[in-house]
Amino acid sequence: MSDPTRSDPTRATLDALNGTDVHLRHVCKARDATDRIGPRRFLHAGPPIELADIPGPMRGAIIAGLLLEREAGSAAEAEAIIDRGEVSISPCHDANAVGAMAGIITPNTPVVVAETADGGIRTFSPLNEGVGGAMRYGSYDEVTLARLRWLGDVLAPALDAALQHSDPLDLLALVAEGLRRGDDCHNRLVATSATLLVTLAPGLLHAPFDRGDIAKVVSFIAGNGHFALPFAISAAKAVTLAAGGIPGSPIVTAMASNGREFGIRVSGLGDRWFTVPAPIGDPVLLEGATLDDVTPTMGDSMISETAGFGAFAMTAAPAIMSFVGGDMARAQEITRSMRDVCAGTSGRFLIPAEDFRGTPLGIDVHRVRATGIEPVINNGLAHREPGRGRVGAGITPIPVEPFAAASRALEETVPERVGAADGQGRHA
Amino acid sequence: MSDPTRSDPTRATLDALNGTDVHLRHVCKARDATDRIGPRRFLHAGPPIELADIPGPMRGAIIAGLLLEREAGSAAEAEAIIDRGEVSISPCHDANAVGAMAGIITPNTPVVVAETADGGIRTFSPLNEGVGGAMRYGSYDEVTLARLRWLGDVLAPALDAALQHSDPLDLLALVAEGLRRGDDCHNRLVATSATLLVTLAPGLLHAPFDRGDIAKVVSFIAGNGHFALPFAISAAKAVTLAAGGIPGSPIVTAMASNGREFGIRVSGLGDRWFTVPAPIGDPVLLEGATLDDVTPTMGDSMISETAGFGAFAMTAAPAIMSFVGGDMARAQEITRSMRDVCAGTSGRFLIPAEDFRGTPLGIDVHRVRATGIEPVINNGLAHREPGRGRVGAGITPIPVEPFAAASRALEETVPERVGAADGQGRHA
Repeated sequence: MSDPTRSDPTRATLDALNGTDVHLRHVCKARDATDRIGPRRFLHAGPPIELADIPGPMRGAIIAGLLLEREAGSAAEAEAIIDRGEVSISPCHDANAVGAMAGIITPNTPVVVAETADGGIRTFSPLNEGVGGAMRYGSYDEVTLARLRWLGDVLAPALDAALQHSDPLDLLALVAEGLRRGDDCHNRLVATSATLLVTLAPGLLHAPFDRGDIAKVVSFIAGNGHFALPFAISAAKAVTLAAGGIPGSPIVTAMASNGREFGIRVSGLGDRWFTVPAPIGDPVLLEGATLDDVTPTMGDSMISETAGFGAFAMTAAPAIMSFVGGDMARAQEITRSMRDVCAGTSGRFLIPAEDFRGTPLGIDVHRVRATGIEPVINNGLAHREPGRGRVGAGITPIPVEPFAAASRALEETVPERVGAADGQGRHA
Repeated sequence: MSDPTRSDPTRATLDALNGTDVHLRHVCKARDATDRIGPRRFLHAGPPIELADIPGPMRGAIIAGLLLEREAGSAAEAEAIIDRGEVSISPCHDANAVGAMAGIITPNTPVVVAETADGGIRTFSPLNEGVGGAMRYGSYDEVTLARLRWLGDVLAPALDAALQHSDPLDLLALVAEGLRRGDDCHNRLVATSATLLVTLAPGLLHAPFDRGDIAKVVSFIAGNGHFALPFAISAAKAVTLAAGGIPGSPIVTAMASNGREFGIRVSGLGDRWFTVPAPIGDPVLLEGATLDDVTPTMGDSMISETAGFGAFAMTAAPAIMSFVGGDMARAQEITRSMRDVCAGTSGRFLIPAEDFRGTPLGIDVHRVRATGIEPVINNGLAHREPGRGRVGAGITPIPVEPFAAASRALEETVPERVGAADGQGRHA
């Protein structure tokens, strides 16, 4: 029992979450990042789902994908392909990817590729398309498609070239700096996106691209306060992958939702999903909207909270509380209560307003089960109709059930750990 | 007495501080911003001082100025010019300017020019030269001079051209956003500088300048976390000028120090300075340094606190506390105590961590005198030898004396106000 990985799975998991460095590797089309997709073989957010069951925005995003891949010449043709079941879909997470909202990734989807410093793990996530109609909300109009093509044909290769003229970009240091600049790096990324542009701009100016194109790239990033999101969540996916597969570990390594089911994965339980009907919570809705308009929680971006930022860093980002509903006292209550369900503290995501105390890190399914405290995520909620965009935002509590189920499964898998866990107060 | 300006000078002063908008107008050489300077006629920080009395960094900066103006071919020649008294100096404030640290402004000094939205007031402040040797600390080596020439010949005109391709840049909105991004905008401006670059970069790419020069400009700004300082303090100077000259007003409109004397100006008392020996406070010194190495407080940048940001916004910038010495509780104590000496609250500098309460705004000399609370500034302290740079930083309390003297002077000037002020609890 001298192997610390075996003797203390929780510690080993936290060490991986805290000690894995992740760099930005490429900005490219998804077909250059994975061989798990094809012209009619797409990735989607959340745990597995049947094509017939997908929510509206995901269906819209698949229509956009078929048009982007030129498999369909019109939305009607794309709908027919879907209705005939001629598209296959599988979770982003199974391809080491994460996608915000619908999370549909097709071969021509422009993505960010992250890689652990040792080169052992590669992850990717679609570029953020900005405000207005977006594939992630199920838009498939011409503006959305033209923007996707431009992102893939111009912005992505320009940024990729910029990387060749820049020092390696440490993506978790980018998130850490974002927390110092008032972002939670899940719902608020305006300062982090500015940092990212400032970091990449010098290299971009040396990239062998037309000056007019570079001007457009700079203007696009400068105008998109969520541009940094895929950079943050692809890095979060990489560290949670590094923290996965540790026998006996009760630490959550993924949270994701397909708009119907919300699921978690746990380090000691491999790729198994533990699910619950996707929650809606009590969001702040756009004026005129009702809860009937809302697609329940959807997307992979809560990998942020899984990796120790987002809502877990709420005290670092008080400026976002008015957006998701609440005040500074509520932010403090959120971060404090998440410490009760986490096994550790981040060594790099430090909160200035808490005298640089680390964020709560590593959701422990035993602790969730024992305390009954629901982990929370900073959530954006899509309109249930394709392409209608964000209809609300909120701090959404995730029901205890999947965490409790995973805790029980761990006990069944590693029966010798139960007594030890109880005896050492792990459940306390 | 129906004129509110006359009936409530304090209210009128606060309205000017809160209601004056300031835009970035130009980036150019100082000779294009004022006619109050010449080849041997420079501006300096703080209240008036005799050439024979200036501290080391200011003397070094004047040497740099004489070399920059090509009045001297060597440092020795420049020293001789100074020793013969053949340079005349006057306060930046008298030319509607503010300069950080030594604050020496010569005709070829590159400056930021700010202007009130009505065009009525123009102010300026030297561009920040970045880390390493800098004129504001008294450096006059070739690296410093070459950088100053490049800033004036390339960066300044490039940014000025960028302004022609950009929307008007609201400098106080830039500061307000900085406070949302964890800056106090006096000692910490790293997020604000990034915001500034993101704002100007698209216009910069359209400016008629060589691409290589633009790349250098972008790289310089990207690498300089204090680049935004002159943008912030020139705007602060503009609003405090707008708030000046209101008969009977006890609100401070300038705080500045020449390294020997710290002085304040008050709205109702015109251009008169009320001074006290420049304080040093209890700074965090660089390793190996002692208080004997420190030039006492020097510079005009405490116009930040005068205008409602800097140390007065400490709770917005907890990340800076470790730099200036202290923790979050100390930050809260500072902002809270400054509310006791201020007559009002900012309507635009809102602190997320205080549920968007405005910063304390408008130091009231009567309140300082009555409470005995010393106003504080976020301070950078220069080595007493020219060109040695920053030797320490701290939150420096300013002695009550000049505020009390101004309070008494106001009573003598407007005797009919004394009873009213007491009766209305202004001194409480």
